[in-house]
Amino acid sequence: MHLSRYCQRMRPSPLPALLAKALQPGVLSFAVGLPATELLPRAALGMIGSEMLAESGGSLQYGLPHPSLRTQIASLLGERSVRCSSEQVFLCTGAQQALRLLAHLLLDQHGQVMLEEVVYDGIRSAIGILEPEIVAVPTDPRNGIDLAAVERHLEAGARPAFLYVVPEGHNPLGASLDLEKRHRLVDIARRFELTLVEDDACGWLTYGSSAAPALRALDDQRVIYVGSFSKLLGPGLRVGWVVVPEPLASKLSMLKQAADFDTATHAQHLVAGFLAGGGFGSHLVFLRKHYEVRRDALVAALERHMPEGVRWTVPKAGLYLWLELPAGLDATELLDLAIEEEKVAFSPGVVYATHLERSPSHCLRLSFGNLAPEQIEEGAARLGRAVERQIVRCRNACEQKCASVGL
Amino acid sequence: MHLSRYCQRMRPSPLPALLAKALQPGVLSFAVGLPATELLPRAALGMIGSEMLAESGGSLQYGLPHPSLRTQIASLLGERSVRCSSEQVFLCTGAQQALRLLAHLLLDQHGQVMLEEVVYDGIRSAIGILEPEIVAVPTDPRNGIDLAAVERHLEAGARPAFLYVVPEGHNPLGASLDLEKRHRLVDIARRFELTLVEDDACGWLTYGSSAAPALRALDDQRVIYVGSFSKLLGPGLRVGWVVVPEPLASKLSMLKQAADFDTATHAQHLVAGFLAGGGFGSHLVFLRKHYEVRRDALVAALERHMPEGVRWTVPKAGLYLWLELPAGLDATELLDLAIEEEKVAFSPGVVYATHLERSPSHCLRLSFGNLAPEQIEEGAARLGRAVERQIVRCRNACEQKCASVGL
Repeated sequence: MHLSRYCQRMRPSPLPALLAKALQPGVLSFAVGLPATELLPRAALGMIGSEMLAESGGSLQYGLPHPSLRTQIASLLGERSVRCSSEQVFLCTGAQQALRLLAHLLLDQHGQVMLEEVVYDGIRSAIGILEPEIVAVPTDPRNGIDLAAVERHLEAGARPAFLYVVPEGHNPLGASLDLEKRHRLVDIARRFELTLVEDDACGWLTYGSSAAPALRALDDQRVIYVGSFSKLLGPGLRVGWVVVPEPLASKLSMLKQAADFDTATHAQHLVAGFLAGGGFGSHLVFLRKHYEVRRDALVAALERHMPEGVRWTVPKAGLYLWLELPAGLDATELLDLAIEEEKVAFSPGVVYATHLERSPSHCLRLSFGNLAPEQIEEGAARLGRAVERQIVRCRNACEQKCASVGL
Repeated sequence: MHLSRYCQRMRPSPLPALLAKALQPGVLSFAVGLPATELLPRAALGMIGSEMLAESGGSLQYGLPHPSLRTQIASLLGERSVRCSSEQVFLCTGAQQALRLLAHLLLDQHGQVMLEEVVYDGIRSAIGILEPEIVAVPTDPRNGIDLAAVERHLEAGARPAFLYVVPEGHNPLGASLDLEKRHRLVDIARRFELTLVEDDACGWLTYGSSAAPALRALDDQRVIYVGSFSKLLGPGLRVGWVVVPEPLASKLSMLKQAADFDTATHAQHLVAGFLAGGGFGSHLVFLRKHYEVRRDALVAALERHMPEGVRWTVPKAGLYLWLELPAGLDATELLDLAIEEEKVAFSPGVVYATHLERSPSHCLRLSFGNLAPEQIEEGAARLGRAVERQIVRCRNACEQKCASVGL
């Protein structure tokens, strides 16, 4: 069968093989960005679903986007300091579909996109089909995107269709932008007529003092906001949304209809039912409390178990922590050792590299959402042993090499 | 905000406005291809959902494609005479996503696709983003696609990425291909190395004597099969599938991950739970019986209420009947009159035109799935009156015109 040129060129992702390894029985996995299954509101959703279907089959039928759900989301967004109308809320099949539809909305074939050098892999796959030219900007595990670099590129003439940015609980870095930086970014966007695509899928899970407002709260014309219920109510529902200037909603609607017709009515109704119950606020408090405990457990365990020379971020939001090994170590090599000898898994930095030649190969992402605190402690201990063993092996290899050339 | 060139060019679809009209209270609508809400197994699905969530939150989590669901679908396909392995079954977000993913799998930007002149509008939107060159072949409301024309195009050098075909219960024509024609089509595909994309979303709803085998049953290398639970268990779940040669499943998987990550785990589990219950066979018999009653009711009502000169197909499968008005009438004009004066709606033929210059403008599609037999009778009576009135108006306009030029 003759395939499209794009599909012929498409290289298999290393992720499925990695996932298969990480999902082996007995392996404690920090590898995949899962929320905690046991923190999802299954009892409430189960009841809502059965009551809904006892009353009518409407949720099984095609339907227009759920009007109350759009209103409910517009109202929830106050939590992120965002004010918008329900007409600006566009429902879609999870945040990943939002990114794909936005790629088609904004980006030409072989057009230009600006990304951080270390970035969520899902944005790369979402835009990949349009084979864009990528303008990469440095980013820092602690402070996030390098805005001076963004400005330099724009001043030098770069005109990306958009800049993709995760201001809160960055995936994979865990960084959050401070308020001053948010204002500066929005200011840059205005000056250069740059569109910002703000991915806030993890931004609702903030820890400690109150979070900075979403970028969309600072500008309603240049920022497109992407949200999702995946981390809040369950990724298995596939309900996300976009906040766009209203005239773009009908364009997105045409793109969406061509892609999969409808966001599942049944899932929309489950989410709307949950929100109508009024328990979302306390559920969010509950989630934040539990994930903060997990984050703290991970940071404390890393302090106990990591050898010297290993550094990590302490995320103020989200489910990801970025860990830097000593520069000579390779996280992909470590992963094999970690899974086989210590039964612990993570995502190596290379997964998030915008350009392979600038891959953070000595770094790795730990996703701590779906492990209980005691599993986190055990997982960090295993990882610590794996890192120590890898350091010893590298030293030995190094010494052998030196000896072999008479040094 | 700067939009992609494709989105700037994109013309708004007439469908949303049409839908809004058709959904006005009091309007009997044959316009939208909905299954009957009341025939969907809501009680069973409600129970499965609540039991599932009482036991675990697994269906709310991300997951690999449901292995038992793939096996169950492979086994169900015996009903369509298709033999395949579970590894050849690829799950996706409804048949519409299947068509979109297959477009990316097979078709280059500006590549060539072969379509019937009157065709399901969803395939046009699915491939639209790749802005293909369309090779259109005539099709007949009674016998379906003109295979001699397909051969002529191929002999003349056309090399489409695929031919999209609906062999059973054609949308919108209602036609089914006879067995001899299916063999001939597969033979053409082999001779010219043509890929066939077979859309069987309505093919499971067959009436009367046993149905012909699906095209995929006649060739497992050149035919890609698209199926869906939308008409069987509910479009609100968004669960469809593709049967592909196994090596292509991993390519589709990469395309799918970029598009929306996962097919909703929750919906997959609901469907798998329903199939595991063992009632699918009798549910299918139940659906066929009810839809056959509706088809018969529509045909009988049209015979009673349509003025002379109106013709229609009698579908052996699916939910659509194609109606041809006298050549001088325009179905889009009729629609306005029908909704405003008679409160009855349908889809005008222009919606299904591959090329507007060859639009079946005097034709219309009646979707009879979601109306009860007594509503069908009333709807056909209203439609008959609307057609009669439109004929009178056209005659009057014609006579006035003749008189005005002294004839």
